[in-house]
Amino acid sequence: MSQYLSGHIHLGDDLTSVVILDQTLLPNEVKYLTLRTPEEMFEAIRSLRVRGAPAIGICAGYCLAAIAQQRSRDLDHPRYLSELFRQVQYLGSSRPTAVNLSWALDRLLRKAIDLSDVTAPPAKIAAVLREEALSIHREDIAMCRAISEHGLTLLKDGDGVLTHCNAGPLATSQYGTALGPILLGTERGMRLRVFADETRPLLQGARLTAYELDRAGADVTLICDNMASMVMKNGWVNACFVGCDRVAANGDAANKIGTSGVAILAKHYGIPFYVLGPTSTVDLDCPTGADIEIELRDPEEIRSKFYAQPMAPAGVKCYNPAFDVTDHTLISGIITEKGICRPPYTESLSALFS
Amino acid sequence: MSQYLSGHIHLGDDLTSVVILDQTLLPNEVKYLTLRTPEEMFEAIRSLRVRGAPAIGICAGYCLAAIAQQRSRDLDHPRYLSELFRQVQYLGSSRPTAVNLSWALDRLLRKAIDLSDVTAPPAKIAAVLREEALSIHREDIAMCRAISEHGLTLLKDGDGVLTHCNAGPLATSQYGTALGPILLGTERGMRLRVFADETRPLLQGARLTAYELDRAGADVTLICDNMASMVMKNGWVNACFVGCDRVAANGDAANKIGTSGVAILAKHYGIPFYVLGPTSTVDLDCPTGADIEIELRDPEEIRSKFYAQPMAPAGVKCYNPAFDVTDHTLISGIITEKGICRPPYTESLSALFS
Repeated sequence: MSQYLSGHIHLGDDLTSVVILDQTLLPNEVKYLTLRTPEEMFEAIRSLRVRGAPAIGICAGYCLAAIAQQRSRDLDHPRYLSELFRQVQYLGSSRPTAVNLSWALDRLLRKAIDLSDVTAPPAKIAAVLREEALSIHREDIAMCRAISEHGLTLLKDGDGVLTHCNAGPLATSQYGTALGPILLGTERGMRLRVFADETRPLLQGARLTAYELDRAGADVTLICDNMASMVMKNGWVNACFVGCDRVAANGDAANKIGTSGVAILAKHYGIPFYVLGPTSTVDLDCPTGADIEIELRDPEEIRSKFYAQPMAPAGVKCYNPAFDVTDHTLISGIITEKGICRPPYTESLSALFS
Repeated sequence: MSQYLSGHIHLGDDLTSVVILDQTLLPNEVKYLTLRTPEEMFEAIRSLRVRGAPAIGICAGYCLAAIAQQRSRDLDHPRYLSELFRQVQYLGSSRPTAVNLSWALDRLLRKAIDLSDVTAPPAKIAAVLREEALSIHREDIAMCRAISEHGLTLLKDGDGVLTHCNAGPLATSQYGTALGPILLGTERGMRLRVFADETRPLLQGARLTAYELDRAGADVTLICDNMASMVMKNGWVNACFVGCDRVAANGDAANKIGTSGVAILAKHYGIPFYVLGPTSTVDLDCPTGADIEIELRDPEEIRSKFYAQPMAPAGVKCYNPAFDVTDHTLISGIITEKGICRPPYTESLSALFS
């Protein structure tokens, strides 16, 4: 365990590596990986060994800090800064949709540039980037706690909550965003019943959400994504809680593929639909959801991944978007660490930053 | 190939066996099974080696006809009829909820009883039952053809169609119900683009629909169930076509789990949603969808089936309804072999039988 912050992502004791829990192996295996090279870091993010917008931000911060420490030994000043810039570009290209990745990398890069202006030595810059990465992690813990408290005000004892994908501790630091109010409420003795969409094709709901809630002693029922309509119709759902990867200025929210469908079902059945995430996920430079790039992933994730043998004919076309955009008109509230934003989001979201 | 009707279900040339394509092995293996004993026939239906309500009816007819031929050699008159009755009870219990199963068996049994009244010899009864089983098969072919023609009037060249589960030739005889218009249109040179929901947890969309459409040269794209919203939002879907397991007198339609969600999404995006099936699926004795019992299946179908290793923690609760009910207000039309029923369904459906 690191001398620094612990959890499923942390800096290695040597300060030149990052240790992560490999989420692709859950729930069958709990295995930590030590990432040393930029290529290993890129692969870990790209392959979703670490995933969830806030967790990617935390990991990216540690990755750049670890690289900064490595390079501080063998690069002098101007080459050191250009190397950091090159690594920010490289790591930032690992996944396009989540804003937290570039947000964290840019935050560290700005620190480096500021120090570079005063010609601080690379070792000093590396130490400051490390502290900045730790700050991102500490802030996320505080943010998740605040989001959980705000979200919990929307629930009462005995409520049923439907969630999609995974926005729990594994997607963040502690508590999580969408799962935060549930975990906090469960800790406080509230009886909450959670319906977790399995979330095809990568099954984050089955593999991670069911795992986290089960371990925390919460009442969780796993369903296939296509069962959400029936669960809502049965009257079992009082609210939907989902995370987000990017929220546009008008409140349109990108999140795991299938989220927009859940929102449409919730509206049909008269169930409130909430998006939970830190203000770092709100991108005021992005006017609407139409401006958010959606990552398209490998068709084999649908056709053959996880299966003992392929479940569709070889060569059949698959469309595999990793995210979709939920229209702001379908969202009852956006819950950040600063409180609950209500429509009109153009006003309530911009007020977060004033 | 049988001297009688061919296809994925047919009578063996010896007249004492039934040959079926084992659908549980698709798309990885195309293997035909020869069913000789009642126990083999029972197992094939129960294990979904043959599935799809009309296909089960066709298969059950051939099974009873084959048994009737076997027993006609060694049983005399009164014992012959009681043996047939016993086999109807036995085969009919293989999937107690499938209405076509008991419908087909009862139809053959009535023929046997009528002939028994005039003390026809067992060999004569066996020949008549064989002819009745062939009639069920022939009628299904004609019914599917008629549904396909009616459905095709709703499509134009270049249209995109979204479908859920499998209601193609493998679920029927030829063409199918929901896939019938697509296959017929493709034969006639129309360019139709199909989006097939993979249909968790048993993946009939991936394993069977994608397989059938691909083999027929149709333009098919496989998606996860939770991607339907995005595909519709992209403007790629002009109509939804689904099959049905039972239609209530008010037009509420039970079909594979997830169908109601597709209907709600279609309404949200302003896309017409059509249910296709034979009039034998319309149950005027069932007033509304609330009167349709929904089969709950094994949680392991969600947690571990098909996977190389389980994808959710051991012991996690799963809710696994096999069907859901789509409210009649979400259905643009119900297409039977007699034509297209439009709302109000209470009137248009009862008119089918007058």
